[in-house]
Amino acid sequence: MNFCSECGEKVRFAVPQGDDRPRYLCDACGVVHYQNPRIVAGTLPVSGSKVLLCRRAIAPRKGYWTLPAGYMENAETTQQAAARETREEACAEVALANLYTLIDLPHINQVYMIFRADLIGSFDAGAESEEVVLFEEHEIPWDTLAFPTIEETLRHYYADRCNGLFPLHIGTITPEDRERYFGSA
Amino acid sequence: MNFCSECGEKVRFAVPQGDDRPRYLCDACGVVHYQNPRIVAGTLPVSGSKVLLCRRAIAPRKGYWTLPAGYMENAETTQQAAARETREEACAEVALANLYTLIDLPHINQVYMIFRADLIGSFDAGAESEEVVLFEEHEIPWDTLAFPTIEETLRHYYADRCNGLFPLHIGTITPEDRERYFGSA
Repeated sequence: MNFCSECGEKVRFAVPQGDDRPRYLCDACGVVHYQNPRIVAGTLPVSGSKVLLCRRAIAPRKGYWTLPAGYMENAETTQQAAARETREEACAEVALANLYTLIDLPHINQVYMIFRADLIGSFDAGAESEEVVLFEEHEIPWDTLAFPTIEETLRHYYADRCNGLFPLHIGTITPEDRERYFGSA
Repeated sequence: MNFCSECGEKVRFAVPQGDDRPRYLCDACGVVHYQNPRIVAGTLPVSGSKVLLCRRAIAPRKGYWTLPAGYMENAETTQQAAARETREEACAEVALANLYTLIDLPHINQVYMIFRADLIGSFDAGAESEEVVLFEEHEIPWDTLAFPTIEETLRHYYADRCNGLFPLHIGTITPEDRERYFGSA
């Protein structure tokens, strides 16, 4: 951030009076520009013994496999966001079950929220997917998953499926976890 | 938003190519300025049969009672945010239990995440609180609660306490719910 989005003057990065961390401040109009984490909402769509994955057609991690998920938009709920992303990436309708994984990525200011869901009817590759496929557990492409959040969600799912209980799992992805996927970038 | 925060030129509000909703666009440098919901993280601090509430010393809803909660910051986890807000507003340490309420407020682009927590040790009014008090159920100031999210969380808590089970509750606050607190503003 270089300029005030309200008045167009230069901003500076400093701790406001009464605050305890630096913010982008506009001395011209007085606005403090707060920056906050973003929610990535998505689903784990299940059909019988199979799980739906999408092969990404866009960067980052083009060609790698993911659960349908993306940034939550203003004016929608978390569940609407999860269902919308599933519709956009997999052309699929789902019946949401419970919130299944809540994963913080503090180093990139993201919070993943993945809902377990039942796939309803057909599916197809959306604009951001090269292909969309239902996988049995032994077919999951563990070595070509797109993000550590996806791996963590799938590992919980197959561990929980033995018991038939799917409680919410809360976790944190570290820079080291992420490095396994993105290299040192 | 009036100006591009990257280059300082005027932005326009229009649907980008390949997108399906309007964004603030900078024709000068090409940046699309996405805007996303913010997380409000907090706790329901419990001490024996009592619940801790804070009387707000700041707007909005100055003088009304709330659970300790506030905007999640970049570079922290949801649980760190909930504990930090509790420390700041109630000078209290807590041991977090489960995520207890997840409440969407799509008309103001917020997602509340309240964790059930055990109060540890002492407490006091932080800078944003006029006073901090432990309440028995029959003492809860229902008519002077600050926000509908707080009322919803407390109602779930007292309903669940009979059973000793505290599952995650997911809900949505509508403009009508909010109007009961804020009037027609």
